[in-house]
Amino acid sequence: MTELMDDDGLEAALRAIGAERYHILHPFHRLLHDGKLTRGQVQAWALNRYYYQNQIPVKDAHLLARLPTSELRREWRRRIEDHDGDGSKPGGIERWIKLAEGVGLDRALVESTDAILPTTRFAVDAYVHFVRDRTLLEAVASSLTELFSPTIIAERVSGMLAHYDFITPDTLSYFTPRLIQAPQDSDFALAYVKAHADTAEKQQAVLSALRFKCDVLWSQLDGLYLAYVAPGLIPPGAFVPQDVR
Amino acid sequence: MTELMDDDGLEAALRAIGAERYHILHPFHRLLHDGKLTRGQVQAWALNRYYYQNQIPVKDAHLLARLPTSELRREWRRRIEDHDGDGSKPGGIERWIKLAEGVGLDRALVESTDAILPTTRFAVDAYVHFVRDRTLLEAVASSLTELFSPTIIAERVSGMLAHYDFITPDTLSYFTPRLIQAPQDSDFALAYVKAHADTAEKQQAVLSALRFKCDVLWSQLDGLYLAYVAPGLIPPGAFVPQDVR
Repeated sequence: MTELMDDDGLEAALRAIGAERYHILHPFHRLLHDGKLTRGQVQAWALNRYYYQNQIPVKDAHLLARLPTSELRREWRRRIEDHDGDGSKPGGIERWIKLAEGVGLDRALVESTDAILPTTRFAVDAYVHFVRDRTLLEAVASSLTELFSPTIIAERVSGMLAHYDFITPDTLSYFTPRLIQAPQDSDFALAYVKAHADTAEKQQAVLSALRFKCDVLWSQLDGLYLAYVAPGLIPPGAFVPQDVR
Repeated sequence: MTELMDDDGLEAALRAIGAERYHILHPFHRLLHDGKLTRGQVQAWALNRYYYQNQIPVKDAHLLARLPTSELRREWRRRIEDHDGDGSKPGGIERWIKLAEGVGLDRALVESTDAILPTTRFAVDAYVHFVRDRTLLEAVASSLTELFSPTIIAERVSGMLAHYDFITPDTLSYFTPRLIQAPQDSDFALAYVKAHADTAEKQQAVLSALRFKCDVLWSQLDGLYLAYVAPGLIPPGAFVPQDVR
């Protein structure tokens, strides 16, 4: 039998999943931040990752619709504003398009999502469906990869600026607000999960939800690696970089 | 503007998608039927493909629930019987487990689906969700990869029997009834699609549905290739063959 953990035990178990499964451990991430990718490979990453960015407010809207109080909905609504903007200052999606344009992609191609990998689409859609269909507790828990994102963002930004002459601080402006937003978000989600996972079974569901979300991120990098690093197996209809070797 | 095609034109357009995107063209399939895989790699294929087999009657049940007449439901119900069996003679899922056991896998591991690749799970779930959430016409059209399956089955069975000493005709008995069932199924689905795709827009939706389904099959082989062929990047928690090099 699995026993009920106290709050610290639950948090430690969540962090242990990150230490084993977060996509900072994926070879594609290392290549990206070590400057080992071509411009075309960085384009493929930006193009595919756009679909993830684009669906984040969709999954948050599904979650918002299921929260029972104004207080909780106000907290979660901020996430959607972070991504969609307020109509004057750009949100995360718009800043991601700027990143994609900064690495040389056409805005219309990015927004169409026509050229992304099927593996990207299926992984991201799996996340949206998970948040829509599972318990509210699992849906909140699946956001907890943000516990680990400040580290990956810091590595990514410093690595990419140091290694790629086609990348400027302006291009990477997507990430700056995320260094403040992500900890806010994960503080809230972690407190929520600690408060509501009050049985051993619920705690295991929370851990499974975080494992699932790590898989969602990992699978996206798997797809990029296979198509654009090695063996270079680009599926029919997907983006072909101009500098593909 | 896209114009309305006649029945032959629509069928030709569907077959052209197969010629370009069906997973018979994927390098993993070629390795499999040419006898170039180790026993462990064949195990990984059988283990992952089980999840697809297992979810086929689930997606067919979603479709069944949306069919408006007894006549149509009787036709589609046969597919579920083909996979689930009738309690006396084994259905497709049970025959697939036999295949998996035949290549040396433990039945409980296979049935648990715990060790499959996230990429497999996301692709297969995408198919189930597509059939549940899209129009009935698109759902039926997404089954049309069966137009192309007799060729891939014939290649697979003859190639695997010729090249792998650990595979017997009995192990591959899954495929024998499929050579009769798949053409029955696709004849019906093709006639349905021809009858109901009566606008250019619906015809394009039908073509997109088939492209989507080809992506579902392709992505599964992408995942297997990356994890078990090259570069051999097995995600955390997934099946590790005993003969992994």
